[in-house]
Amino acid sequence: MTGPEERLAELGLIVPEVAKPVAAYVPAVRSGNHVFTSGQLPMRDGELMATGKVGGEVSAEEAYTYAQQCALNAIAAVKAEVGDLALVKRVVKVVAFVASTPDFTGQPGVANGASELFGTVFGGVHARSAVGVPVLPLDSPVEVELVVEV
Amino acid sequence: MTGPEERLAELGLIVPEVAKPVAAYVPAVRSGNHVFTSGQLPMRDGELMATGKVGGEVSAEEAYTYAQQCALNAIAAVKAEVGDLALVKRVVKVVAFVASTPDFTGQPGVANGASELFGTVFGGVHARSAVGVPVLPLDSPVEVELVVEV
Amino acid sequence: MTGPEERLAELGLIVPEVAKPVAAYVPAVRSGNHVFTSGQLPMRDGELMATGKVGGEVSAEEAYTYAQQCALNAIAAVKAEVGDLALVKRVVKVVAFVASTPDFTGQPGVANGASELFGTVFGGVHARSAVGVPVLPLDSPVEVELVVEV
Repeated sequence: MTGPEERLAELGLIVPEVAKPVAAYVPAVRSGNHVFTSGQLPMRDGELMATGKVGGEVSAEEAYTYAQQCALNAIAAVKAEVGDLALVKRVVKVVAFVASTPDFTGQPGVANGASELFGTVFGGVHARSAVGVPVLPLDSPVEVELVVEV
Repeated sequence: MTGPEERLAELGLIVPEVAKPVAAYVPAVRSGNHVFTSGQLPMRDGELMATGKVGGEVSAEEAYTYAQQCALNAIAAVKAEVGDLALVKRVVKVVAFVASTPDFTGQPGVANGASELFGTVFGGVHARSAVGVPVLPLDSPVEVELVVEV
Repeated sequence: MTGPEERLAELGLIVPEVAKPVAAYVPAVRSGNHVFTSGQLPMRDGELMATGKVGGEVSAEEAYTYAQQCALNAIAAVKAEVGDLALVKRVVKVVAFVASTPDFTGQPGVANGASELFGTVFGGVHARSAVGVPVLPLDSPVEVELVVEV
């Protein structure tokens, strides 16, 4: 019987600390049986892992790993809200915003960095949208938001 | 007494086959009384109907028809998840991402291609966001996601 | 005992009229215990307050005030749907789309114009995503959508 955190550990990952609430928004909110996360950036140890546009100074392969970090931060946000990741019944929806050069059309491959981590950790499948954007907060290459059912 | 599929038939449309689940995400997920679809591209018979940016090589009129095809694929995704479109009580929310040249500001007109089909098929009205983006997966001109209540 | 409308009044704001439903979508839809708004533009007295891109002809400070107006219109949409803003239990999720020049990375500061108004009016905290986009409907600088629990 392994739970979500054990499956993360098998990947060599641990649930990071969540940044403290800032201003008027927070990393995640529970409403009924759902938890909605804020858009998560690839912060690690308090710093953005990279800046720039995918298809330009950021490669698709690098962006995949940043999407995974966004997903890990989303998992941390959910954990901080509900206390125990084993309470997550299902990942419902993922949206991946990829800061893209105008000719980069591989957003789904980047978003797989998040989707595959969610699949490994929580099992099951989810709905997803992946879109290109010109620029993200702090010049982040990727931003991922998440809705889970608890 | 006509149902959603009969209303589609009156438009000369049928619910297409849904692409098989790919990797770690699927076309739609049910959670409680809601079905969330993935972002749908204007795929028809397994191929993207067009590529490019609206306001550039794709006209607003063409993009309207692509948004309709996205909507049709979203309907197919919902049907595959719940079995019978007559179970849909309400279209709740539609988001239309329109790959746009920087000077194209007619995203609402494009999104109407989806909204009007949903209105015809399911009746009622829904909330909607329409936004421009620089580029979409596979260089698709439009992507539409959907939340319905069942 | 002050309610949401009193708190708006303390800011010198009143809930505006909601634009009539257009075509196949409406400003807000209730589904179960949630109200989903359409993407709101900074319309005031029936006109867009400004056009253009943040980081270009629109400053971040101006965009903050436009995001606040979007939020006010979202509040109006919710009120029109549920009748009384005191029924709102919680702001669940806010998404802010900011029409941005490629080098503008201050989307969170712009989105605070919406978040801080929601915090003042409804109390509590919410989840949020803020992203850059190249262009919005009518060349609006900002678009905000909202999910509340009632």
